[in-house]
Amino acid sequence: MTQRIEFQTQPDRYRHWKLKLDGEVAELVMDVDESASLFEGYQLKRNSYDLGVDIELADAVQRLRFEHPEVKVVVLRSGKEGIFCAGANIRMLAGSTHAHKVNFCKFTNETRNGIEDASSNSGQKYMCAIRGTAAGGGYELALATDHIVLADDGNSSVALPELPLLAVLPGTGGLTRVTDKRKVRRDLADAFCTVEEGVKGARAVKWRLVDQAVPTSKFDAAVKEAAGKLAAASDRPGGDAQGIALTPLNGKIEADAVTYSCVKVEIDRTTRRATVTIQGPGEPPPATAEAMWEQGALFWPLRLARELDDAILNLRLNEGEIGVLIFKSQGDPAQVLAYDAFLDANKGHWLAREILHYWKRVLKRIDLTSRSLVALIEPGSCFAGTLAEIALACDRSFMLIGARAGDNRPPATLALSGLNFGSYPMSNGLTRLATRFLGEPESVDKARAETGKMLDAEASEELGLVTAAFDPIDWDDEVRIFLEERSSFSADGLTGMEANLRFAGPETMETKIFGRLTAWQNWIFQRPNAAGAEGALKRYGTGVKASFNPERV
Amino acid sequence: MTQRIEFQTQPDRYRHWKLKLDGEVAELVMDVDESASLFEGYQLKRNSYDLGVDIELADAVQRLRFEHPEVKVVVLRSGKEGIFCAGANIRMLAGSTHAHKVNFCKFTNETRNGIEDASSNSGQKYMCAIRGTAAGGGYELALATDHIVLADDGNSSVALPELPLLAVLPGTGGLTRVTDKRKVRRDLADAFCTVEEGVKGARAVKWRLVDQAVPTSKFDAAVKEAAGKLAAASDRPGGDAQGIALTPLNGKIEADAVTYSCVKVEIDRTTRRATVTIQGPGEPPPATAEAMWEQGALFWPLRLARELDDAILNLRLNEGEIGVLIFKSQGDPAQVLAYDAFLDANKGHWLAREILHYWKRVLKRIDLTSRSLVALIEPGSCFAGTLAEIALACDRSFMLIGARAGDNRPPATLALSGLNFGSYPMSNGLTRLATRFLGEPESVDKARAETGKMLDAEASEELGLVTAAFDPIDWDDEVRIFLEERSSFSADGLTGMEANLRFAGPETMETKIFGRLTAWQNWIFQRPNAAGAEGALKRYGTGVKASFNPERV
Repeated sequence: MTQRIEFQTQPDRYRHWKLKLDGEVAELVMDVDESASLFEGYQLKRNSYDLGVDIELADAVQRLRFEHPEVKVVVLRSGKEGIFCAGANIRMLAGSTHAHKVNFCKFTNETRNGIEDASSNSGQKYMCAIRGTAAGGGYELALATDHIVLADDGNSSVALPELPLLAVLPGTGGLTRVTDKRKVRRDLADAFCTVEEGVKGARAVKWRLVDQAVPTSKFDAAVKEAAGKLAAASDRPGGDAQGIALTPLNGKIEADAVTYSCVKVEIDRTTRRATVTIQGPGEPPPATAEAMWEQGALFWPLRLARELDDAILNLRLNEGEIGVLIFKSQGDPAQVLAYDAFLDANKGHWLAREILHYWKRVLKRIDLTSRSLVALIEPGSCFAGTLAEIALACDRSFMLIGARAGDNRPPATLALSGLNFGSYPMSNGLTRLATRFLGEPESVDKARAETGKMLDAEASEELGLVTAAFDPIDWDDEVRIFLEERSSFSADGLTGMEANLRFAGPETMETKIFGRLTAWQNWIFQRPNAAGAEGALKRYGTGVKASFNPERV
Repeated sequence: MTQRIEFQTQPDRYRHWKLKLDGEVAELVMDVDESASLFEGYQLKRNSYDLGVDIELADAVQRLRFEHPEVKVVVLRSGKEGIFCAGANIRMLAGSTHAHKVNFCKFTNETRNGIEDASSNSGQKYMCAIRGTAAGGGYELALATDHIVLADDGNSSVALPELPLLAVLPGTGGLTRVTDKRKVRRDLADAFCTVEEGVKGARAVKWRLVDQAVPTSKFDAAVKEAAGKLAAASDRPGGDAQGIALTPLNGKIEADAVTYSCVKVEIDRTTRRATVTIQGPGEPPPATAEAMWEQGALFWPLRLARELDDAILNLRLNEGEIGVLIFKSQGDPAQVLAYDAFLDANKGHWLAREILHYWKRVLKRIDLTSRSLVALIEPGSCFAGTLAEIALACDRSFMLIGARAGDNRPPATLALSGLNFGSYPMSNGLTRLATRFLGEPESVDKARAETGKMLDAEASEELGLVTAAFDPIDWDDEVRIFLEERSSFSADGLTGMEANLRFAGPETMETKIFGRLTAWQNWIFQRPNAAGAEGALKRYGTGVKASFNPERV
């Protein structure tokens, strides 16, 4: 699996999904092309999926938000007879590296969270109409929606058969959503997760696994009725609102660099570092929401978010040996603040709302990236408002005091906008500033009082907004020492440490999925009972039973 | 490491700790005998510890609660010059099986949580006086206390050097307590966890790592003053209150059984199951708190809690291949309810309070035991009140309807007492009933309305208190099928699944430690960067640097 994975796609290139648009209610139909797997060596039978299928789903979910403000409800269904979705493809999992399995699961979890984000924040409600079997990741997909209708036809069922079949967990949020979203009683959840064939009909309703079980004759009507109810509760524009086109990103890909319009990724393979440089806006924000809409995908905050998102995914999946991401920026911080003010003033407009929620998701994607993150805040940079949030997402941030000899760019500043105080909650439900200052909440108020000001390095350090400020004499050594030290540590140890230190305070369903569930799954993905030569993943479908070490740890 | 690990000890047998009693303030002095390691192959240098050291600590913490109601403050300190504690012994970790490492960490975490429980609930406050280095588990021990005084002598420091030194995490609650208890700013926490030599003096205070940094000349006075303040805030009896002696348990150990006075563990090695049978009280509760005190360690609820605790620990550490624990009970449920009523009525008495909190901890120990747990509720059993909580802690519970032919014992009943509704919160802060009925809170109220009633199998099933009720015709088959099915699953898959399904709803510092932190640590304990032949644990102290795979996953 060394080929480059491409995250950009569009509906006319989909192999696995059909997006059917018809006014307020859209259908997203899963109809996997079994021969169109992302890698060699397996076929996507029974509507099973691999990362390629999920990249299309993520694209569809994203386009529905930006391109289709008229859509209030999305109905997920299968395009195949007798099967809804068999979940993640097992041969793909069995043949994948540990790193690919882990990153595949992370991406699918982010896609499911994205569906829930659309439901919660964009008035674009998802529901699921299940005919046939929804097993494993198939049921996990259903769990991400607001309403599950199951055909009561003696055949259709929901199941989480991972443990009995594969000796792994339903790790795409499955266990957490069963207990914390569907709130299934724990012993019933235990029973459910051990029954290969799943649960059907009335029992599935009684166990809280689905919302409705409906006979075949009434199925379509029930789905339509449920969709109508969800649409009625939506605050989505609907009607003849016009979306914007998410045009291709056209990043230029070279061996050691990816260059977009306002993001550049430069990779140093010797030191295993990537520098992500963000370019601030070249012009002031438009005067009106209408003008923003006309700019569409070229509107700077949206363009940057899309490019940054793609860059991060590319680093995660295609650049596994790059251990440190260095964030830099270039531009006019006042302009960045002007865009923030524009978005804040227009947040009642559906498109501004989408952009703000998209930035929230991109920033969460950064939080959840298992690489060491450092922001270097230097002269000429523009870590202001939304871009300051990137520095706050980093494990460390260093800021240069004053100017280097011969450099006539303005000294580094950091600036906060209103968006730093609530628009971009982390997975734990808190802002990055609130998480940062959990032990001294008064520091959040002190920072708020400086909103809109250009803070120099010493002021930023004093306010606790950066890890350290260094003068030009010390800067190079301090940064070098930090980077070299980071490279000397174990990659796994860093991953575990960062996953713990980044999420202080409250836990949510999201943090439980990425913390508790994912960590246990990653552990299991290492264990011989699952991944060994005689383990369940390898033995699946061979006719030979897996051989288990019975020892409990 | 196949020798049997014994959890019973007493102060006159301690090799590593000294308990110094002097009125309201006790000292618990760590002075590890380096030659008295639990296993061969390593020496406990620099006040480092292994499970044997921690068993003594757990014993001391427990005895301080029961035997010393006069003690309001416990000061942890070192008996060695220049070193407070170097943490878990690295050669022990390097030489341990994965299962031992995991269970060692779990036990040490439970001990730290027990210290916090004493501080929070018994008015027995812990503080830590650090002279010399408190590194790794040494600092984690300090983190469990309410107040940390660090000598400001140019030498004393606190450190979490696990990542740089060993490529593992500070997994005894370290990362979680740094972020969630001490609320250290995340980038400072990141810096702290990467600095091998740790942090000293004023900086340690500024970073919130310790509460005070005090020059040597004033150190003892500062410790005394801090202890005095903590004592003043304590609601512990103090004065000349008399404790009770925790007399030896004297369990009879045979090859496949351990027999205590009211707990019997029977092990079937072929099927890899253990049956834990609990014997109800033989006589009614005493009439007065004074009479309870006179019974001391023989008082049935305390005796049972101690025996059950020991039995669970024995199964965890000494019986790794036993995958299923079957809980049964025998006795008069009305008697059990009478003891619950007695404890509830006397909960203002320090000893009753201790017993209730101890039961809470024993039940948490069951929740956190990585074996499948099932309660079989049969005729003649007494799963009432506190003992019903054991059934509620199980992954499944089955109840027999009516009587078997020829069996004249009373049909199975389940009964709830007031103690089921708040006295025994799980690690997630909720009662087991509230966790169970997260999706239907009205079911908690329905159950409460039945408090004190003897509920038969059908009523218990209807109330959702058991997984299923079976009549005698089906019972044997149903139970057999469940047990066989459980044995057929992967031990690791079950561990991961149970760790997720048992803790629905809110997360607390405790659940974060056992869920998020522990799961990541267990993952790391499997990774070659730490545990491989060229990994940091193996290479530590050899003079050869560990060799790391740089790939991030």
